[in-house]
Amino acid sequence: MITAAVLGASGYSGAELLRLLHTRSDVKVTRCIAASSAGKRVAEVYPAFAGRLDASFEPLELSGFDGTDVTFVALPSGEAMHVVPDLLGKSRRVIDLGGDFRLQSAAVYKEFYHHEHVAAAFLPEAVYGLPELNFEKIRDARLVANPGCYPTSAILALLPALSRNLIASDGIVITSMSGISGAGRSASVDLSFSEINENIRAYKIGQHQHLPEIESVLGDATRKQVSVSFVPHLVPLTRGIYTTVHSTLLAPVSDDDVRSVYSEFYHHAPFVRVKEEIPQISHVVRTNYCDLFVKVDPRTHQLIVVSVIDNLVKGAAGQAIQNMNIMFQLPQNEGL
Amino acid sequence: MITAAVLGASGYSGAELLRLLHTRSDVKVTRCIAASSAGKRVAEVYPAFAGRLDASFEPLELSGFDGTDVTFVALPSGEAMHVVPDLLGKSRRVIDLGGDFRLQSAAVYKEFYHHEHVAAAFLPEAVYGLPELNFEKIRDARLVANPGCYPTSAILALLPALSRNLIASDGIVITSMSGISGAGRSASVDLSFSEINENIRAYKIGQHQHLPEIESVLGDATRKQVSVSFVPHLVPLTRGIYTTVHSTLLAPVSDDDVRSVYSEFYHHAPFVRVKEEIPQISHVVRTNYCDLFVKVDPRTHQLIVVSVIDNLVKGAAGQAIQNMNIMFQLPQNEGL
Amino acid sequence: MITAAVLGASGYSGAELLRLLHTRSDVKVTRCIAASSAGKRVAEVYPAFAGRLDASFEPLELSGFDGTDVTFVALPSGEAMHVVPDLLGKSRRVIDLGGDFRLQSAAVYKEFYHHEHVAAAFLPEAVYGLPELNFEKIRDARLVANPGCYPTSAILALLPALSRNLIASDGIVITSMSGISGAGRSASVDLSFSEINENIRAYKIGQHQHLPEIESVLGDATRKQVSVSFVPHLVPLTRGIYTTVHSTLLAPVSDDDVRSVYSEFYHHAPFVRVKEEIPQISHVVRTNYCDLFVKVDPRTHQLIVVSVIDNLVKGAAGQAIQNMNIMFQLPQNEGL
Amino acid sequence: MITAAVLGASGYSGAELLRLLHTRSDVKVTRCIAASSAGKRVAEVYPAFAGRLDASFEPLELSGFDGTDVTFVALPSGEAMHVVPDLLGKSRRVIDLGGDFRLQSAAVYKEFYHHEHVAAAFLPEAVYGLPELNFEKIRDARLVANPGCYPTSAILALLPALSRNLIASDGIVITSMSGISGAGRSASVDLSFSEINENIRAYKIGQHQHLPEIESVLGDATRKQVSVSFVPHLVPLTRGIYTTVHSTLLAPVSDDDVRSVYSEFYHHAPFVRVKEEIPQISHVVRTNYCDLFVKVDPRTHQLIVVSVIDNLVKGAAGQAIQNMNIMFQLPQNEGL
Repeated sequence: MITAAVLGASGYSGAELLRLLHTRSDVKVTRCIAASSAGKRVAEVYPAFAGRLDASFEPLELSGFDGTDVTFVALPSGEAMHVVPDLLGKSRRVIDLGGDFRLQSAAVYKEFYHHEHVAAAFLPEAVYGLPELNFEKIRDARLVANPGCYPTSAILALLPALSRNLIASDGIVITSMSGISGAGRSASVDLSFSEINENIRAYKIGQHQHLPEIESVLGDATRKQVSVSFVPHLVPLTRGIYTTVHSTLLAPVSDDDVRSVYSEFYHHAPFVRVKEEIPQISHVVRTNYCDLFVKVDPRTHQLIVVSVIDNLVKGAAGQAIQNMNIMFQLPQNEGL
Repeated sequence: MITAAVLGASGYSGAELLRLLHTRSDVKVTRCIAASSAGKRVAEVYPAFAGRLDASFEPLELSGFDGTDVTFVALPSGEAMHVVPDLLGKSRRVIDLGGDFRLQSAAVYKEFYHHEHVAAAFLPEAVYGLPELNFEKIRDARLVANPGCYPTSAILALLPALSRNLIASDGIVITSMSGISGAGRSASVDLSFSEINENIRAYKIGQHQHLPEIESVLGDATRKQVSVSFVPHLVPLTRGIYTTVHSTLLAPVSDDDVRSVYSEFYHHAPFVRVKEEIPQISHVVRTNYCDLFVKVDPRTHQLIVVSVIDNLVKGAAGQAIQNMNIMFQLPQNEGL
Repeated sequence: MITAAVLGASGYSGAELLRLLHTRSDVKVTRCIAASSAGKRVAEVYPAFAGRLDASFEPLELSGFDGTDVTFVALPSGEAMHVVPDLLGKSRRVIDLGGDFRLQSAAVYKEFYHHEHVAAAFLPEAVYGLPELNFEKIRDARLVANPGCYPTSAILALLPALSRNLIASDGIVITSMSGISGAGRSASVDLSFSEINENIRAYKIGQHQHLPEIESVLGDATRKQVSVSFVPHLVPLTRGIYTTVHSTLLAPVSDDDVRSVYSEFYHHAPFVRVKEEIPQISHVVRTNYCDLFVKVDPRTHQLIVVSVIDNLVKGAAGQAIQNMNIMFQLPQNEGL
Repeated sequence: MITAAVLGASGYSGAELLRLLHTRSDVKVTRCIAASSAGKRVAEVYPAFAGRLDASFEPLELSGFDGTDVTFVALPSGEAMHVVPDLLGKSRRVIDLGGDFRLQSAAVYKEFYHHEHVAAAFLPEAVYGLPELNFEKIRDARLVANPGCYPTSAILALLPALSRNLIASDGIVITSMSGISGAGRSASVDLSFSEINENIRAYKIGQHQHLPEIESVLGDATRKQVSVSFVPHLVPLTRGIYTTVHSTLLAPVSDDDVRSVYSEFYHHAPFVRVKEEIPQISHVVRTNYCDLFVKVDPRTHQLIVVSVIDNLVKGAAGQAIQNMNIMFQLPQNEGL
């Protein structure tokens, strides 16, 4: 039996972790920490759990983590780094779903997150938790930085083409559309139904904190200087990320050629499906799949890749559990 | 030229007033009061107005209202009653879009609004601003209490049947579904897209503040003791109210009989359409129409009436402007 | 191992059956029949199944059903009755998700379904598959008529109050809102996104085919003459039914009294949750739960009950599987 | 008084034309042609017009167009070219809202529309009806090809930068998201609410018929070889197009520099707003505005432009009326 704690359990990612974990017979969630809801029953905040999950949110007390096998940290970026160092002395493994340990450079972190990193000493040991890239490092990691939702979709879309030298590493254009749950569970006029419904908006153009994550992970993985332009959009649906990537082909290839490269690259990846039809959000929602589609545009010598995930599953809680499964040498898709 | 002020201009009803008024050549909006946005340009808060409406939100200063022909008060219920008494000495006419002057009884007001009425002395003079009921009183009123959105749909649905003694005045069941803009422009997790989308919820069952408004207006108009059960629901759309009313027929009648009664009753009402097909929100959205449909259920001896409006137009700003038109002896549908 | 066939597997209810069955280790889906999609792979029509369900849709050939333990018939009403008689000689058990075997009277069937019943001889043997009502009959039934989505929500809302003589059996008003998947997977302008989005409409007022189902099942169960008025509405969400019921209390009671009656009545029902807060669609979506909420309106002597389900789960495929579980003496919630 | 006919009046663009024209005192709609709805009243098909527009749909008879000042052709692409040649002998001016006369090359037309052009002789005389580009030609044109919705947003986004030599004319990436009304009013499972809601999909990647329209109009206007990669997406809202364009800067510039170029370029264009904040669909919906936002990404030397319109207004009916206004020497924004 794996003992697991969830820190920040009342947000959307935290609740998704509970949803995916509470039916497993091989995992026991020992702690549901949520400072803002401490003392309330989980089913009070998320009535969907009534009759299924008998637990209460607790305040944060680090003493309670002693001997926990794995702790999922689903705190907002900027909060996790205050807690993780202490946690690492208590919980055997830590999987942080936020952005605090994804960038190797504290300077870049400050530039994009707009505050100092207070636990930069732990950055070198953090393993970027993308199983399709770092399976073996994840297995042995004490601290896993679970990838961001946009980066998960974008990196999986680009990794084969860059690794196999099909495309140039600069001039990459990433356009993403995200469901609103990606903005978290918060009170904000900007996220209210009346403002989001029948509306679309781009935001943080060229300044989103996931931009350096995409560039650095792809750069480190392929030993290239990767340069991308990234524009995220909010669209009126709850779950899902739809990412369309344009890049410049280095040599003429066919759709079939590229699809073969992708299929082979992800041959052992149980959650990546290289599709022959254009994927849709509905194909992956509430699953841990990433569906990919490749298309060569011979007129413009571009490779276009479509990449689709559920932001709360493969883009957050599902991938975190996939990482846990790897750590504990379970099948990657156990419970997913 | 009618000079008009809008107090509480940055909420959804206030913005709808500006949308409907700013193109009129016979009305000049002299003041846009919005304490929370004071100093900002209207087009900053509502970018749709860019290039069309060159005005700024101002803080509340009563001195500025001297000699204004009409002031629309679009403040939350409970705030208007603190301002209206002073306004009445300055602005020639006042139309309050909130609930503070709709009930004749300060005791009932306290029961349903959960605070004391501080301007009860002004209740007797307030005219309930439903033009289909109170056309002549509105024309001469100094203070009009613009009807609530649910009551507008429900009262228009019931007025002919009760007035013509087709139905019993008790045992009336009103079920309403409202778009989310009816809840106002506010930061709240409960109103966030992720909570509202793909969801429905009833609220304030049997306790909504519009309940006594419906009963008292219908009761006064028909000199009957009217008793209704009212359940409002929030459904995932931005605009519109869909109200379905069940009542008990006093004698057998046909659909055609009832439709004739309704058509005749609203013969002079330019904004009520008695339809032969079941109406839909899309038929009335962004208009000042109320679409009605009547259906006799001979099995259960019930009269079923469907009533549909746009909550921000006939349910708020449009009806307020209809009232202004009546006050200034313009065609009721001027600018609507 | 239970062998199961699905007839009409390419509609929304059929696909939901496959979704719920394909991960079970104790059930093997041996046949996916879908005439309109015969020859296509399931993952071609429903790409969400790619990599998870390796099966193809087949044309209907009754010979293939010999010895099947259970056949789920997810055909449109009016088609099932042409097939079920032959099926009953081959498949050990048949669960029909449509309306053909829910009414005991072929005459009432014709009145509300607008065509003759061609298999009326099988009506007496069909068991109405509402487990909270007919657990033991379902266990032994050869033919189960799985309840309609609206009736499931309405009957569960009313059964305790009628059975315990809390309310009058006439004058009952049922108002329901349904997600659009309830209308099935079909090409229709009326169901297109542009017509449904930002819209609400009532339909089949007083004439819906689920009306006699509600009345006859409640009447038979409580040995009363039950008379209801029923208005269904389409609202812009994909899944879920929200039903609000008004009825007349026979004697004064408190909310707590009624809640106790309901809680006790459903004490052994694993999928009915009697809640203390008003339920929402989001609390039950993708689950087999029915959430109930009771509220006494002392002003009008009415009992108001809110009842919420997922139309494709408790209102269709989930309840069918619950019935299968009962037939094969498994825990009711196995795989749900 | 301008006499106007609408051909194809029952589709979404046709209905939007009626909505925008029926309140004008200087335009009289003399014919509403809609073969599929011939004989029905407009208010029967679009109940929103009840009490406001007293007209019926008629079958197509060319004789009826004699002497009409202007005819709007809102037929599907491929149908207009069969009618327009005859119309030009009868109606003084013709504005075609479809794609049949937008491309100068019949060969390219065949490649992207997948059928032969049967009226290629009329291509040279057709004027591309983008007022911001062809104001004077439109004024004098007998036949105007009203721009496509995607091209309107994309061309307005790129015209200033290409004309002023700020960006390279190749390597342009256009990503667009469209509301579903852009797909027209048709019965299709793919466009049904249950398939579109909570979903996103890209389509016709690199093959959309608007691609050559964008390239050829920009190429002709700037005398450059323009090459773009274009991916359209369907997102779950009814109206609006959101286009995000990436291009390569030819020399370093600041955001302010580019914004000045754009503001000056569109100085005389009443419907283009160059904004300092990122625009949203809600800012332009139901208006004829195109909102533009420019952003230099100094890291990648790219210019990012966001362009937002209402697909049924500036992307169809509104722009057609703007063209009519220009033809008849009215203010461009008359009635818009």
